[in-house]
Formats: sequence, C-alpha cells, structure tokens
Amino acid sequence: MHVFDQAIALEGAGDLFRGTASEAYWAFVGPFGGITAATILSALTLHPGHAGHPLALTVNYCAPVAAGTFDIALRLVRQNRSSQHWLVELSQAGIVVTFASAVFAARRASWSHQEAPFPHAPPFEHFESSPAIPGRWTDQYDFRFIEGDARIGEPLSGDERVYSRLWISDRQPRQIDMLSLTSMSDAFFARVFHAKREIVPFGTVSLTTYFHVDADELAALNITRVLAVVDGKVFHNSFGDQSAELWSPHGRLLATTTQIGYFKA
Amino acid sequence: MHVFDQAIALEGAGDLFRGTASEAYWAFVGPFGGITAATILSALTLHPGHAGHPLALTVNYCAPVAAGTFDIALRLVRQNRSSQHWLVELSQAGIVVTFASAVFAARRASWSHQEAPFPHAPPFEHFESSPAIPGRWTDQYDFRFIEGDARIGEPLSGDERVYSRLWISDRQPRQIDMLSLTSMSDAFFARVFHAKREIVPFGTVSLTTYFHVDADELAALNITRVLAVVDGKVFHNSFGDQSAELWSPHGRLLATTTQIGYFKA
Repeated sequence: MHVFDQAIALEGAGDLFRGTASEAYWAFVGPFGGITAATILSALTLHPGHAGHPLALTVNYCAPVAAGTFDIALRLVRQNRSSQHWLVELSQAGIVVTFASAVFAARRASWSHQEAPFPHAPPFEHFESSPAIPGRWTDQYDFRFIEGDARIGEPLSGDERVYSRLWISDRQPRQIDMLSLTSMSDAFFARVFHAKREIVPFGTVSLTTYFHVDADELAALNITRVLAVVDGKVFHNSFGDQSAELWSPHGRLLATTTQIGYFKA
Repeated sequence: MHVFDQAIALEGAGDLFRGTASEAYWAFVGPFGGITAATILSALTLHPGHAGHPLALTVNYCAPVAAGTFDIALRLVRQNRSSQHWLVELSQAGIVVTFASAVFAARRASWSHQEAPFPHAPPFEHFESSPAIPGRWTDQYDFRFIEGDARIGEPLSGDERVYSRLWISDRQPRQIDMLSLTSMSDAFFARVFHAKREIVPFGTVSLTTYFHVDADELAALNITRVLAVVDGKVFHNSFGDQSAELWSPHGRLLATTTQIGYFKA
C-alpha cells in the first residue's frame, strides 16, 4: 500500500469516520495540511450519498492535528439537482481542529476554453530532486524546481521573488487522483521561506482548491506528476497569501488553489 | 442611509439575525452575491463575541436567495488566542441557501512585503462610467474600465481575453470598509460574459476573499474606490474560475479574491 494511501486511510461509514494523524507526512507541529485536506476529501468520496465530482474545497486549519486518532463528521448541507454542498468537521477529543466546506457537482459538457498560459518546462527528468525543506512530509514528494527554489540559508540579495515553477511527484510514483491532487495543492514551501530564505514559524490558516477536471478525466490522463507554478502577493502583519496552478505534463490545467497562512517574521 | 447600508441591514443579536433580500442589489435570480457576502460579514462583526479583524471569508452559494426575509445563524467553531473560526448559515424557511466560513484574527505587526505589482492606472475621473451589464445591482456601482470592458453584443474576434483592469466605486460614493470591500470582491462581471461577449446563465458557486488590511488600516486610508484587476484561467464543463486583486488608489493591496462559478454556454 502506498504511503499516501496509508496516510489517508479511514475507518467508518456513513457520516462518521476515524483516521490517524500521519507520521509519514508530519510537518512542523502536526501532519502536513495537504494530507489533512486529502483525508477530508476521501471521507466525502467514501460517503454513500456523495454524487458528482469534487469542484471546490475550502479547508480551515484551526489548530494542529495532534498525534493519534481523529474523528471526521460529514454533513450534507444542501443537495441540488446537479450539485451538493458539504460541511466536514475533523475533531480530536471532541474539539474541532479542522473544518471544511466542499462542493461536488455533476459537470455537464459545455463550451470550454483554457485562458491561462501553460508554463512550459523541460521534462521532469531534466532536473535534480530538490533538497528538502525540513519536515518528514517533504520526504514523501519529489520536488524538482525549474525556477524559484527556496535557497534556505543563502544571503538575501534584495531582489528575491517568491514565484516558483516546479515539478511535483509523489516520491514513490503514484497515479494522481483527486485525493493526491488535493494534497499537492498544498505541497509548496511557504512563500515566506522563499522571501526570507529562512525557515520561520508558519501555518496555513485557510486553503481553497478548485478542480478543473473531474475524477474520470484525471484518471484518463494517467499521470504521476504535475507541473506547478506558485506565487504570493503580500505579507503583512503576520499573514501572507499564496496562489498556485497545477498542470498536467501535457498542458491541462487540473486545479487552482489559494491559501492564507500565518507567519512569524 | 446609504443604499449599501440599507441592503445589509440586520435585526437581531447574539447568534441569530434576520435580514431582507435586497431589491436594490438584485441580480439575475436573487441578490448579487457580494451583498450576501457583506451581509454575512456584517452579522459576524455585530456578534458581541467577535474579536480581531476579518482575515478570510469563504461563501458557498447553494441556491439563490429568494425575495423576502432570511435568517442568519452564527457559530464560533474554534477560538484560539489570536484567531477565531466561524461558521455562518443563511436560511429561508429553515432551508440553508448560503453558508460561509470566516477567520478573524488579531494581526500582530511583522515583517511586511508587497510582492504583487501595483496595476498603475490613470485616475478614476479620466474614464467614463461603463454602461452596466443588466441587473439592478450593477446600478449601485460605478465601474470605469481601463481595459477589458465586457463589450457585450460585439462580434467575437477570436483573441478575446477575460482580463480586466477597472476602477470600482459605489455609485453614491461611500467610504470603503471591510463590508463594502467584501461586496466589491464579487463586483465583477462573470468572466464568461467577457469571453463570449454575451450574457449567459451564470451563478457564483463559491467565493473566497482574503483581507490584507485590517478595519483600522482601511479606515485610515479613507477611500471610496478601488483599482481592481480580475482574470480567469479556465472554463470547462459548465464551471469557470475567477481571481482578482483589489487595490487602494495609492497602491496598497487590500484584498485578493477567487471564485468558481457555474455557467451555461
């Protein structure tokens, strides 16, 4: 069983599930936020009442998930003809540590147009695997920077940018599905690390991911890596933003994501 | 009383409020989503237990708000030392039509850095007020396009882009606060209208706004208009995204926002 599937494994059924905080994806003070988001989405796709495909997911990280088990409770807030709105609470000892809203939709064929330019890059194999930012979760990914590596510890030149373009793969390749795509939507080093070339206390506060393919389209692409671009716009009074695009290697925009995070610097 | 303040007016106290769907901000099938988002944020700021300033707001639009009254119920999901996580449900006849999550935070002074480039533009007075897209809500705003007007009804040239840069002001100028900034974060014409130069059925499904100033900083700026840039990345199988930046006239990034919407085209 792939380490990712182990990490997001759940027991339970219906509206209630139980999982265990993944040590393999541990970050600074709890599991990497992406694995928590993927676990939440997994619970939704295990629910017998789910219909359609994930369209939007917002995860609010209230506090670190502690080591040990957690409970996930699902609630279908509203069901329409072709969409569902869900609320999910992840709690430990009865206290909410993470909660999320999700939209599922049956996506009908329509006029399609991809406006965003594909960030062409040489192939994955052309680049070295990046030395990891400390944290066990980074060991589970193979990050290959085309530009904008974090360069932690190097002196500041004054013209740092926080834009990065990189390949992301599971370290042990695994066909990308909606769950691993969700996790990858948070699999960036905090932009403040890039700006400061320093690891500072950081935590994602809220993460929103939109899916631009459905599960069947993604399966048909049969890919194990994404090409990603990520940037930040502003750091101010202890919070900073980040936004990213995740592309298939052949130029399909799979997901867009944005987050706001706390930092101490 | 300004039409905006009339539109977001609430009765009630504590966790429960009641408002009335605004006819002045009516869009195609219900009130403009921005006014609903602002009303939800207003309820939170009226709650005696709120602390800190709005940092992140995600609003999920499950169904159009119908004419008449609605109820808003607030729940403080988690309180930390310097942040709060809230859930808000807006319902009519006991059925949820919109719900939201919000993060409030006490923002401590930190290293600050504005990475995004200011989209310089000639002053507001330099441009004509744009003919409105149909819908009463658009009458409440003064949109002045610097580039990327929707050009509804004009023939397609094949090189349409959905990027716009524009000034946005309340039609009757009103000092911008967190509530009107929230509303303005949804005050763009659907990107699909720009792409198709045609009004097609459209509805925002989920809207996320991050605030990069607090209420006191915004008040000190004392502004009645924002300079905005907005773009979309992909339209596919009935859904498309949008992201935007809202700037003060003098170059302060006030808010960033993203949304995913349904369209029929």
